[in-house]
Amino acid sequence: MNLFLSLALDGVQQLMPYVPGKPAEELQRELGLSEVIKLASNENPLGTGRKVAEAIRNTLPEISRYPDGSGFALKTALSARWRVDAAQITLGNGSSEILELVMRTFVAPEHEVVFAQHAFALYPILTQAVGAKAVVVPAKAYGHDLDAMRAAVTDLTRVVFIANPNNPTGTLLAAQAVEEFIASLPKSVLCVLDEAYYEFVDPAVRTESMHWPDKYPNLIIARTFSKAYGLAGLRIGFGVSSPEVADLLNRVRQPFNGNMLALAAAEAALTDADYLTETIAVNNAGMAQLTSAFEALGLPWIPSSGNFVSVDMRQPAMPLYQALLRKGVIVRPVANYEMPNHLRVSIGTERENRIFIDALSQVLQGV
Amino acid sequence: MNLFLSLALDGVQQLMPYVPGKPAEELQRELGLSEVIKLASNENPLGTGRKVAEAIRNTLPEISRYPDGSGFALKTALSARWRVDAAQITLGNGSSEILELVMRTFVAPEHEVVFAQHAFALYPILTQAVGAKAVVVPAKAYGHDLDAMRAAVTDLTRVVFIANPNNPTGTLLAAQAVEEFIASLPKSVLCVLDEAYYEFVDPAVRTESMHWPDKYPNLIIARTFSKAYGLAGLRIGFGVSSPEVADLLNRVRQPFNGNMLALAAAEAALTDADYLTETIAVNNAGMAQLTSAFEALGLPWIPSSGNFVSVDMRQPAMPLYQALLRKGVIVRPVANYEMPNHLRVSIGTERENRIFIDALSQVLQGV
Repeated sequence: MNLFLSLALDGVQQLMPYVPGKPAEELQRELGLSEVIKLASNENPLGTGRKVAEAIRNTLPEISRYPDGSGFALKTALSARWRVDAAQITLGNGSSEILELVMRTFVAPEHEVVFAQHAFALYPILTQAVGAKAVVVPAKAYGHDLDAMRAAVTDLTRVVFIANPNNPTGTLLAAQAVEEFIASLPKSVLCVLDEAYYEFVDPAVRTESMHWPDKYPNLIIARTFSKAYGLAGLRIGFGVSSPEVADLLNRVRQPFNGNMLALAAAEAALTDADYLTETIAVNNAGMAQLTSAFEALGLPWIPSSGNFVSVDMRQPAMPLYQALLRKGVIVRPVANYEMPNHLRVSIGTERENRIFIDALSQVLQGV
Repeated sequence: MNLFLSLALDGVQQLMPYVPGKPAEELQRELGLSEVIKLASNENPLGTGRKVAEAIRNTLPEISRYPDGSGFALKTALSARWRVDAAQITLGNGSSEILELVMRTFVAPEHEVVFAQHAFALYPILTQAVGAKAVVVPAKAYGHDLDAMRAAVTDLTRVVFIANPNNPTGTLLAAQAVEEFIASLPKSVLCVLDEAYYEFVDPAVRTESMHWPDKYPNLIIARTFSKAYGLAGLRIGFGVSSPEVADLLNRVRQPFNGNMLALAAAEAALTDADYLTETIAVNNAGMAQLTSAFEALGLPWIPSSGNFVSVDMRQPAMPLYQALLRKGVIVRPVANYEMPNHLRVSIGTERENRIFIDALSQVLQGV
């Protein structure tokens, strides 16, 4: 062990960083391909929205100035949109930073952090980074087992993560079950409700959680502009919580954690109802397109409420992932989620989905 | 004390966040002013460079995708520019994040962190955030007293911060003195050499530190694109260290901490020699303009190697700061740096400097 590894905090010594989806340019570089389809990172296939592009172009002359560290304009817009107080909001460099801020504010090595098997890979990484103990609760049909998760909460538990819908499984918990779970927690246990994929859920069954922090001051809702709003590249997300919790998270965040173009773009994205509507329509159509193809190929999939779907290849998926790469299609292997036979496929445009389905069919036939 | 404050980590409980310079829009809102001059945050007065704007416009169609988490292109460009290995580089959401990553990787509550009186305000904040003990070493003529800082290093010291030039004093340490200081440190003490204002220093006396990590693997150099490169709003900076240290910092950083437009803009900024040259020329001329005015007004100032200068008002500076605000000029009070009689003034354009000088003259005459 080198000197600096030995000097690193205990949690950091064993930290294995998150492995992102392979960038399309990287694959193009490696294989010299002319076109690469990336359905690997749950990105919005519609690209940059008109209003967002306009907001960025308008803000471009200002970028030699620091951003507004308080995020006044975006918080005002979020406050109006969600009818929450601006003092309840914490802005993050992506919603992943909101999760990280909760850990850095409240969790020490003596604490436990509870989350589900197959849940988002950042939860164990963030737990490891602060040197706390991860308590992984076995899933039920790929989804969170809330009763088992409640039973796993002890006096040492400081944070519970709930992903709804969950990534990479796409599983959805009923609103009532989630609220009962939060209500059952001791007030000293912080619950992070990660709703990165909220907008893709059918409104009829969606968890409308934004006012829950009034009742449950230990609740932090994490939302992002990376998915349905199409701003993954800009890094902007937010937390909604009790003002007491938001005050603490805002103390720990860096003063200029949100960049100026992301703040402007997010504010514009909130006003672009057409982009959001089209995003949902494309997602619903694409989900039908992909799942029909899986059915035709005899491949089971996990019903998903997100903008992605995990499909069971009925064999180790890694060789198929590699074979798809060679055809210029990037999807996501999820062996690190204890799902070695699954591939997670993000919903793309009709054309992207079709190219993926054709490539998958060929790969399965050994072509 | 509310429940959540009591649940927060010890360091966080006493954390008082960094107070940024007042945003110009905020002052315009408050006072209904038509024009506001901001010389408060050491920003580049030239605004957005042509090549940077072009790079952002070219990248705009991609922002619904995640950034390249490895920062391949920017690291390659930095590697070529500074002749360091890409494995030595850590990219940060501003260089402030590099400082934070060092703390989160290596510093626990039982450790001490050494820095100078009047040094950058983030050092005590970051020390407090991880609950470690700040060892503040009295300054010598507003600058770092390296002998006293070396003497302050104990078995408990984990990090030493050196700001060169220092903000808000602008004081510069000689290259040889800095290298001797680093060479004298135990290898288990990490030295962060914060060179945010490097580009503004006269090349004849500048510390050329980029290859020092080869000799001193406990050294981390922090540089930023926020100042001379004019990208404060985008949040991008970097650290250069031994590969062993960089590997650890890269484990702790969020996978997408650098946003896509910042990565593209920084790469473009590195190619824009004209912008950098003009920046330095405007800064040198503005420094002469301001210090001549201070001399005429009989106000002492601290000779500065940065893009700002701290001037002694010979009376409590806060009322003068407030009076300048009412005239639409924002500068920076530095009472929180134990300099209650000083104002820190960022160098602006010729016109901005003139408006500030006129306003200051009027304020001092009680007009």
